[in-house]
Amino acid sequence: MQKILELIHDKKYQAARRDLIQYNPVDLAEAFEQLNHYEQIKIFRMLPKNLAADVFSYFSRDMQMQIIAMITDRELGDILDELFLDDAVDLFEEMPANVVKRLLKNTDDQTRSLINQFLKYPEDSAGSIMTIEYVDLRKSMTVAEALEHIRMTGVDKATVYTCYVIDEARKLLGTVSAHTLLVAPPLQKLSGLMETKVQYVTTTSDQEEAARLFDTYDLVALPVTDHEDRLVGIITVDDIVDVIQEENTEDFEKMAALLPSDEPYLETGALLLARRRIPWLLFLMFSAIFTGAIITFFEDSLAVMPALVAFIPMLMGTGGNCGSQAATLVIRGLALGQVKTGDALKVMFKELQISLTVGAVLSLINIVRVYLMNDSLLLAVTVGISMFMTVVIAKLIGSLLPLLAEKLRLDPAIMASPVITTVVDASALLAFFSVARLILHI
Amino acid sequence: MQKILELIHDKKYQAARRDLIQYNPVDLAEAFEQLNHYEQIKIFRMLPKNLAADVFSYFSRDMQMQIIAMITDRELGDILDELFLDDAVDLFEEMPANVVKRLLKNTDDQTRSLINQFLKYPEDSAGSIMTIEYVDLRKSMTVAEALEHIRMTGVDKATVYTCYVIDEARKLLGTVSAHTLLVAPPLQKLSGLMETKVQYVTTTSDQEEAARLFDTYDLVALPVTDHEDRLVGIITVDDIVDVIQEENTEDFEKMAALLPSDEPYLETGALLLARRRIPWLLFLMFSAIFTGAIITFFEDSLAVMPALVAFIPMLMGTGGNCGSQAATLVIRGLALGQVKTGDALKVMFKELQISLTVGAVLSLINIVRVYLMNDSLLLAVTVGISMFMTVVIAKLIGSLLPLLAEKLRLDPAIMASPVITTVVDASALLAFFSVARLILHI
Repeated sequence: MQKILELIHDKKYQAARRDLIQYNPVDLAEAFEQLNHYEQIKIFRMLPKNLAADVFSYFSRDMQMQIIAMITDRELGDILDELFLDDAVDLFEEMPANVVKRLLKNTDDQTRSLINQFLKYPEDSAGSIMTIEYVDLRKSMTVAEALEHIRMTGVDKATVYTCYVIDEARKLLGTVSAHTLLVAPPLQKLSGLMETKVQYVTTTSDQEEAARLFDTYDLVALPVTDHEDRLVGIITVDDIVDVIQEENTEDFEKMAALLPSDEPYLETGALLLARRRIPWLLFLMFSAIFTGAIITFFEDSLAVMPALVAFIPMLMGTGGNCGSQAATLVIRGLALGQVKTGDALKVMFKELQISLTVGAVLSLINIVRVYLMNDSLLLAVTVGISMFMTVVIAKLIGSLLPLLAEKLRLDPAIMASPVITTVVDASALLAFFSVARLILHI
Repeated sequence: MQKILELIHDKKYQAARRDLIQYNPVDLAEAFEQLNHYEQIKIFRMLPKNLAADVFSYFSRDMQMQIIAMITDRELGDILDELFLDDAVDLFEEMPANVVKRLLKNTDDQTRSLINQFLKYPEDSAGSIMTIEYVDLRKSMTVAEALEHIRMTGVDKATVYTCYVIDEARKLLGTVSAHTLLVAPPLQKLSGLMETKVQYVTTTSDQEEAARLFDTYDLVALPVTDHEDRLVGIITVDDIVDVIQEENTEDFEKMAALLPSDEPYLETGALLLARRRIPWLLFLMFSAIFTGAIITFFEDSLAVMPALVAFIPMLMGTGGNCGSQAATLVIRGLALGQVKTGDALKVMFKELQISLTVGAVLSLINIVRVYLMNDSLLLAVTVGISMFMTVVIAKLIGSLLPLLAEKLRLDPAIMASPVITTVVDASALLAFFSVARLILHI
């Protein structure tokens, strides 16, 4: 970039332009962030129209706003013309009202009505991430005609690798890959070539469903139909990679007691971030007050043997960790479709086996340690038994709560560590004090 | 499947076969799991060779072993012939030694030496997930020659959508898409058409790096070169989707104090699962013993005012949750490349702002609640100030530890909830008891 800026400074525009178009649009977009406003607009104006639109689509939202503010209506119109429809829709969705007004003014009628239609699809639906740049063929075409059709119309299409065969009413009949067309005899009819076992979604399907189909069937593109089975768009795999990452981020956030959001962390304001953290913290804080009440309830026992308090963090901590280990595996299994609610018994049996092993190990280590440090076998056995019970309870609660959530059609991810920790904390304390009363007679 | 079984039972093999080939191989592979051994082998033998290989590649490992045990050497040879090389390599990697021996016996020399070469690539490297089914072209070819070359060789290739232009030494010069070939004039030379800004990885690059390139540049395929820049394979986007999910699962597991594994939960034995859980539990348990020691250290203060114990779960719990909220956002930001170690100051400042807000809210609520319930303003203020300090400390530790881990080239995900909870627990207790001593003079 430095070199290009120098070329511009020396008024060697031809050379600067030649250098610019060597770069990948993604890298160019990133490099823009380092420039000052004057350099940004200068360089942006040097880009050929289609590269400019490409680079523009990779800008951050703030950068897009800046550029829009600096360019003329005519330049804006050119960029909107060159943008893929799904990128244009994203732009309309993200810009503030006054910018959208200027965008609308510089969009032609046909694009405007398409964008309006796209803006109506529900958030996170298949319709909201699809693109309309695909190749449609008729089943009566020959291979030669199909290839000719692609040659005529394919230049601007996002993907010509899979072509879609439709009938007169635009109903989806099947698919045929560019590959098949290339290797087939030119006069063969598409009706004999096309694949009719087609996976598809409708415009209002959840984008997660689309992601699952891509994952299960190793797809590169997925057709989207309206509710009368008419082909209206396709989803391409690069957008699905984004959906998968988004869904994973959402799960990570829910599992850490955060209200989920699409915005990158560094670009979100502190107040908004605080607002997304407080609700769950409050809920969990009030639950912990309940745990505190259990301790108060056993105050008399503690008065007899204050040393017991020192074991509370270890029991609660280990319980919480055991629970979230089990919960995470089950939640992830559910998300990837490897575990189903019908597997509840299998999961319970497996966690029971695991917790007996883990519980035995942790409990034996504690019996030895407490005995060596406190010289009281009864206290050692009390801690050991409590640890064992805590591990078993934690593993069972941790694995079954997410399954219960899924069964109740709630998101299993909200049953993760924080919620389970709170439930397990209370159970661990109850187990500990009951065992202590029984064994130590306090 | 029921219908097909009936057709077979009635010896209507033609009809059964016609029905079978209507199914998607992924669905067929899943349906096989429901059948008994006799039905499995019967139906598997009815499948046309290439469909059989396709279905076979989607079987679970156990299912693959069963089928291999039931078919003849000749049938096994046919399937190995039809499998894509990367699926064959997976098979060799996953089967026990005695099965591998039988597999090797039924593989032809050329495939065997290729498989041996692939097995040498490190686990999780780009080489281990690439495929060799791609189309290579020369830059001196015309468009017509290139299309003819694709027609001649493309049938078995995983992807002909991007073709790779190489020189005599197989050095990668550029790419040209099937799309470009289709729309270009037939006599144009590839040297004038090809894209020379090519993203690529080497065989020993980490698969995560490949995934990041796919994500950043919206790729459909990525070429893989050896260390002398010679093209040796390509990675296709469907395999990258698996890599992304694997990496996410690994992060989820690390963040829940589990040793990561590739095996699905339900297919892993209880003992193995227990072994993956015990190490971190032990480490965290011993850390919690340290937290317990802090309580013991302040035993005298507790003796004066036993009611203080009841606030411990709430303070420790809220601290842990605050810490893991911050840690999760930073860890996720690092994983997605939205946060870099250089952003440490920005992150610290943001978390400081957030924790002042969150701390103020939680602390005020606690002051009011404790005052109303205990009628002691001093106690209320003690709890309030401790809560405020806990929130601030937890957010700062939670956000900075993962950045520190990244800086030290450790995996930031291991600095997640469990580790941070343990550190924050101790800090929360120290803050609480110090404030209590100061304000309540105990």
